[in-house]
Amino acid sequence: MRSLFTVAALCAWTVTAGAQTPPRPDPGPLTLASQGSFFIGGHEVKSETLSTLPAYASSGTVTVDQMYVRYQIPQAPAQAGAASVPVTLIHGCCLTGKTWETTPDGRMGWDEYFVRRGHPTYVIDQVWRGRSAADISAINAVRAGKVAPDLLPTVFAAGHEGAWAIFRFGREYPQVHPGLRFPLAAQAEFWKQMVPDWLANLPTPNPTVPALSELTQKLGGTVLMSHSQSGIYPFQAAAISTKGVAGIVSIEPGACPEPTGDLAPYKGLPILVLFGDYVELSPRWAPRLVNCRAFVAAANAAGGKAELLVLPEIGIKGNSHMLMQDDNSLDIADLLLDWISKHVARQL
Amino acid sequence: MRSLFTVAALCAWTVTAGAQTPPRPDPGPLTLASQGSFFIGGHEVKSETLSTLPAYASSGTVTVDQMYVRYQIPQAPAQAGAASVPVTLIHGCCLTGKTWETTPDGRMGWDEYFVRRGHPTYVIDQVWRGRSAADISAINAVRAGKVAPDLLPTVFAAGHEGAWAIFRFGREYPQVHPGLRFPLAAQAEFWKQMVPDWLANLPTPNPTVPALSELTQKLGGTVLMSHSQSGIYPFQAAAISTKGVAGIVSIEPGACPEPTGDLAPYKGLPILVLFGDYVELSPRWAPRLVNCRAFVAAANAAGGKAELLVLPEIGIKGNSHMLMQDDNSLDIADLLLDWISKHVARQL
Repeated sequence: MRSLFTVAALCAWTVTAGAQTPPRPDPGPLTLASQGSFFIGGHEVKSETLSTLPAYASSGTVTVDQMYVRYQIPQAPAQAGAASVPVTLIHGCCLTGKTWETTPDGRMGWDEYFVRRGHPTYVIDQVWRGRSAADISAINAVRAGKVAPDLLPTVFAAGHEGAWAIFRFGREYPQVHPGLRFPLAAQAEFWKQMVPDWLANLPTPNPTVPALSELTQKLGGTVLMSHSQSGIYPFQAAAISTKGVAGIVSIEPGACPEPTGDLAPYKGLPILVLFGDYVELSPRWAPRLVNCRAFVAAANAAGGKAELLVLPEIGIKGNSHMLMQDDNSLDIADLLLDWISKHVARQL
Repeated sequence: MRSLFTVAALCAWTVTAGAQTPPRPDPGPLTLASQGSFFIGGHEVKSETLSTLPAYASSGTVTVDQMYVRYQIPQAPAQAGAASVPVTLIHGCCLTGKTWETTPDGRMGWDEYFVRRGHPTYVIDQVWRGRSAADISAINAVRAGKVAPDLLPTVFAAGHEGAWAIFRFGREYPQVHPGLRFPLAAQAEFWKQMVPDWLANLPTPNPTVPALSELTQKLGGTVLMSHSQSGIYPFQAAAISTKGVAGIVSIEPGACPEPTGDLAPYKGLPILVLFGDYVELSPRWAPRLVNCRAFVAAANAAGGKAELLVLPEIGIKGNSHMLMQDDNSLDIADLLLDWISKHVARQL
């Protein structure tokens, strides 16, 4: 099954293999029908340790677990159908929605590019991250001596050196994979995108998942496009409800659903799992690719419409884990949008 | 001096006093010349306590103190001059750049309105807030037992009940000021905007201030528009360098510069300090207004071009501390943009 699927996938993709990426011409003005931002989810929590400062009360109510969403809707394109299906961009570990905006070296991000290609585009900050509030009550409870330090929240920051191999810039810091397309000359600007990650402090599934499900149902049809840590979230959202899930594009997921699990939510759902280059060289990523291959095969055996695309297998080499920021990022975007155009029907 | 200035200010403002705010018509499509996001500032910090999780290294380098900036530039307006001076929007305590976006009840935010009025508009997240990373090393140092809990970072969350009086929704929670223009029916959406505030953990001036100065010089001319906690930042940035500071609009500042301090940076600089309603009823805000009146008088005596505007004094009643979200928010925006048009020259 697996080799057949791989051959089919290879034939389905048309690629100018190995071509250098020429700079894109000035795209000209961008006309939006509308834009804005809002939150999904969130609930009130009472706390006695909101503050240790006299100017702010220690006791009170805060709202947490909400998910920040910013969107832009292009002026209505001439053609309807998949060309105008909304896309929701879901960032990964230690990052925020900034992931999809202007690249570290100043090129257009996918957030704008997708709009220019006619798709209403929604960019989220995961709960407890970026503009989505974390709950810091436990920090003040420890500081006030009310509870022991082991009750401090689990929060981590990914250091440049450790993240280097995770993002597959090279085998280990500061080695660089030959032919790497990530704009390393601007790496300082990339490191500024990284923020503390509270995920390990949260229940499973992350409250981001029901928030994504609520957003998806509200939109009445969207492609959920996830990355890395969030790779599994669209699958988890589809398990809550397939209503409004027009398709899933999971980019370099930290995990795919278990091949032996309940695959019913994915029946008939267009799914694309995408990986970049150097995966086999990474002890972290190689087994994840293996697991995703197994999931895709199992999903298709159960009536699914899933595809796995490993870029080097179609001649596109040099992509890091941060392929939405690599120097061929808009070429990758074109691949994904072409896939959406072929496989996803607008469900509004 | 003070009464003379007040009379002059009253005469300078043309207002349809007390009028109900009619809904704005559909503004139609928005055409941007460009948009994007980037960071200003930031520096590398080495840490041994980035993580307590096995999957992420505890030792490494992170980048902190950078300031996130998102911008939109309108298609070039027909006329040059003050009508196209960039505006930089700087949020206040416990909030992020979301402050200026879509209001809690779903109306257009100032971020978009200013662009539609022809101004390139820059929206920041203060350092250690929103998409600008905080440093959580100290939390993990305490969790690992390496340092005592009193070395935990100072971070607080403003509870709804305490924030109620600070934002002047009423004298105290849950009382409501008569005639209040804040959209309280959508208050749940406002509380979702609030995030933990690490300011008290940071040096003075907040690293946001030199970042604003760097941004201002990079833009070669911008109006710095601050709010509440950040009210003082534009003045502090001007004290670093007046280069590029085209004007200051300080909305309900937590503090104005000391009237007896060095006023040289403000000589010849167009400055507007704006307050809403109910200030005299607030033990927190009334003295701040008094101090700002004294600063404006002193700045003018020293050759300044400062104005203080208290909205009820020109017949505009009912505005809360969050006047960029009140039901007449676009009328207030028009006031400010008219002031910019009259007093600020584009310095590019």
